[in-house]
Amino acid sequence: MEHKIPYKIYLSEDELPKQWYNVRADMKIKPAPLLNPGTGKPVTLEELSHIFCTELAKQELNNDDAYIDIPEEILSFYRMYRPSPLTRAYFLEKALETPAKIYYKFEGNNTSGSHKLNSSIAQAYYAKQQGLKGVTTETGAGQWGTALAMACAYFGLDCKVFMVKCSYEQKPFRREVMRTYGADVTPSPSNTTEVGRKILEEFPGTSGSLGCAISEAVEAAVSHEGYRYVLGSVLSQVLLHQSIIGLESMAACDKYDIKPDIIIGCAGGGSNLGGLISPFMGRKLRGEADYQFIAVEPASCPSLTRGKYVYDFCDTGKVCPLAKMYTLGSGFIPSPNHAGGLRYHGMSSVLSELYDEGLMEARSVEQTAVFAAAQQFARIEGTLPAPESSHAIRVAIDEALKCKETGEEKTILFGLTGTGYFDMVAYQKFNDGQMTDYIPTDEDLAKGFANLPEVK
Amino acid sequence: MEHKIPYKIYLSEDELPKQWYNVRADMKIKPAPLLNPGTGKPVTLEELSHIFCTELAKQELNNDDAYIDIPEEILSFYRMYRPSPLTRAYFLEKALETPAKIYYKFEGNNTSGSHKLNSSIAQAYYAKQQGLKGVTTETGAGQWGTALAMACAYFGLDCKVFMVKCSYEQKPFRREVMRTYGADVTPSPSNTTEVGRKILEEFPGTSGSLGCAISEAVEAAVSHEGYRYVLGSVLSQVLLHQSIIGLESMAACDKYDIKPDIIIGCAGGGSNLGGLISPFMGRKLRGEADYQFIAVEPASCPSLTRGKYVYDFCDTGKVCPLAKMYTLGSGFIPSPNHAGGLRYHGMSSVLSELYDEGLMEARSVEQTAVFAAAQQFARIEGTLPAPESSHAIRVAIDEALKCKETGEEKTILFGLTGTGYFDMVAYQKFNDGQMTDYIPTDEDLAKGFANLPEVK
Repeated sequence: MEHKIPYKIYLSEDELPKQWYNVRADMKIKPAPLLNPGTGKPVTLEELSHIFCTELAKQELNNDDAYIDIPEEILSFYRMYRPSPLTRAYFLEKALETPAKIYYKFEGNNTSGSHKLNSSIAQAYYAKQQGLKGVTTETGAGQWGTALAMACAYFGLDCKVFMVKCSYEQKPFRREVMRTYGADVTPSPSNTTEVGRKILEEFPGTSGSLGCAISEAVEAAVSHEGYRYVLGSVLSQVLLHQSIIGLESMAACDKYDIKPDIIIGCAGGGSNLGGLISPFMGRKLRGEADYQFIAVEPASCPSLTRGKYVYDFCDTGKVCPLAKMYTLGSGFIPSPNHAGGLRYHGMSSVLSELYDEGLMEARSVEQTAVFAAAQQFARIEGTLPAPESSHAIRVAIDEALKCKETGEEKTILFGLTGTGYFDMVAYQKFNDGQMTDYIPTDEDLAKGFANLPEVK
Repeated sequence: MEHKIPYKIYLSEDELPKQWYNVRADMKIKPAPLLNPGTGKPVTLEELSHIFCTELAKQELNNDDAYIDIPEEILSFYRMYRPSPLTRAYFLEKALETPAKIYYKFEGNNTSGSHKLNSSIAQAYYAKQQGLKGVTTETGAGQWGTALAMACAYFGLDCKVFMVKCSYEQKPFRREVMRTYGADVTPSPSNTTEVGRKILEEFPGTSGSLGCAISEAVEAAVSHEGYRYVLGSVLSQVLLHQSIIGLESMAACDKYDIKPDIIIGCAGGGSNLGGLISPFMGRKLRGEADYQFIAVEPASCPSLTRGKYVYDFCDTGKVCPLAKMYTLGSGFIPSPNHAGGLRYHGMSSVLSELYDEGLMEARSVEQTAVFAAAQQFARIEGTLPAPESSHAIRVAIDEALKCKETGEEKTILFGLTGTGYFDMVAYQKFNDGQMTDYIPTDEDLAKGFANLPEVK
């Protein structure tokens, strides 16, 4: 049958948003400022410009402007793969026999395989504008590194990626995609940086962590002329760029008179969740509409549901500014059995503040349940999802099943951030029945909290 | 800037074609009939129905009906991922500084990663309609096997895939995607079939071939109650289903008044090329328009450019009907250094006939040149292409560069059949500068021709 609302809602190119939305402008309580770890005072634009491109540093500190123009060259690149489809999960609804209406915003239709490209192209653009030679970054699962490599190839920038060592070894194909786009990929910790050598000395044989790779990438940026550091999540500038996801979703919903009751996103550092919910949250903050927002995180890395809302280091090497966020401590590393991504120890300051004010909920889910949802979704809706995205699928299905019980016809919107084509080792574990769950004990978490910095 | 013709032309759901187009109906000389290898006479519907689902056998033998209704359940599935975008390669045109206009029809936005889903869902549907338990097939690179696994998961059919052993070993992730969709994947040759055991005995340690996997899949189908064999290329029914690619392309072109001069597709068995060009060829056959069609094949498996147009076995085990086609002989196996797919020894009977009549051209290209085009395309247009698709990219770029020399503003349309995310071993070889070319000598080809059957 044909439906009144199509399977996939594609906005036309001229409906592509021309401005990003900055949710901070509508927040009554602003996210706490980044602090200079030396002085303990809020970082200045000048200080931040040593690490980030100047324009990006400005965006990072901008709590006031609700809308920021998207430069034409970024819009032009966006048109290569955007607007992305808002999909009605008719098949899933039918299979679940739920009265709920389920929609997902799919960001996986590009070679980076995720939403990360929305911010990488912006960051590469500003680096190019500033006349830089290149940028440095870290990558865990590899989506961000791939997205940045693609963006740098487009603008002819040099791209140095520090890839968490265990991913570098377990995901040679991710690495190869980055190389195909001309990026230079180094397993982290490495002995190409001082902080890397120090970590290797302290923890010989370590398989690395995101926090450690960040430290190396920052050092590589500040110690090379003409380089800056870029980051794919956590930062407020990233949420700004990712607001394109939410803006398109909202435009598509408005066009077809779809009114979401629940909006769900997976949350590692918060880039996708923040981007998806931003404009809807804006409406909520301005009192124009109400939504239930749910952040979904892995039970093995539960920064929102079990972390502390304090100032913390963003990286293991403690070279970055301090951020106030829900955190498990910069030394926290999820159990090695954790296969599902979303392994960063902290959460975006913007999302942390919204969560702290009760404007957003959070749930943690275990990975076998997540992969069961992923498999179910793949078989019914066709697309094989990224493990990260599957956290949101899990909760979307749970909420739809609740509607089945209660008979409520809720409208559920979730973010399908990407595809799982480079995550088949994790899928294989699940297919073979060898995936296990892990929930850190309070003692485990206490170790992470022990390293929190003291901030007056 | 915004363009009059958008980057991506998405037809709306109600513009999705409701009928497939059967180019055979417009061919003055019909493709030669399949022959029963025992009797040497054209196969009957009854004979063919032992191997194929009855409805598919009818489609295979149908040279008369130009249009065949697409059943509603298939249309419904198509709407999950179709219409697929027709993309204007603005970035590539600019990078090449060509006056040519380049378009590509992108079939990779689905988890099978290619156009193969267009036919697998049709074949699974007819199997389900007939009340079968399941289907068997072979897969080489794995795109067809994945597409069939997805289709079978959707209809709740059992799916047995014989995967060419070297691919099974080199592409564990492809295998894992199939398993995630519930398929049963066996490396071929295997000792689960008589023909497999025979081949293993004759060639111990063989890494397998498509022709051999076909024989095993056919045997598994005919020796199990409630099973039929399905195939992802070569067959006329497959070209029929794949005509959806060409029909959508034509509709998009007509909508925006785009008149392609050259239409290019990669050609292994012919599924994509045949599907893309069918409706355009129809116009040419009916004298309504003219186009230059170019089939692109690997220099290491040159069935059109160096093969013979004769009756041949479709499989190594010689259990299938004989087909008249351009062929290198059913024993031909491309050199082990061949990484770029398109390794079947023969070519669709429909395309073979069109080529023989001079209605279509063919070119062969070497794989390092193909991967260079793939890398260039990935960096400029964003999408990392499948090696197979990159054959078409190579020739599209070559033609665009010719236009640069001559100043001609030709309109080029090519088929971008899929993505290369599971082909990173081949890309790595290229990135490491270790890819080599291979062109079979006349002596090499003579060995393949030596096994051609005698047909009166």
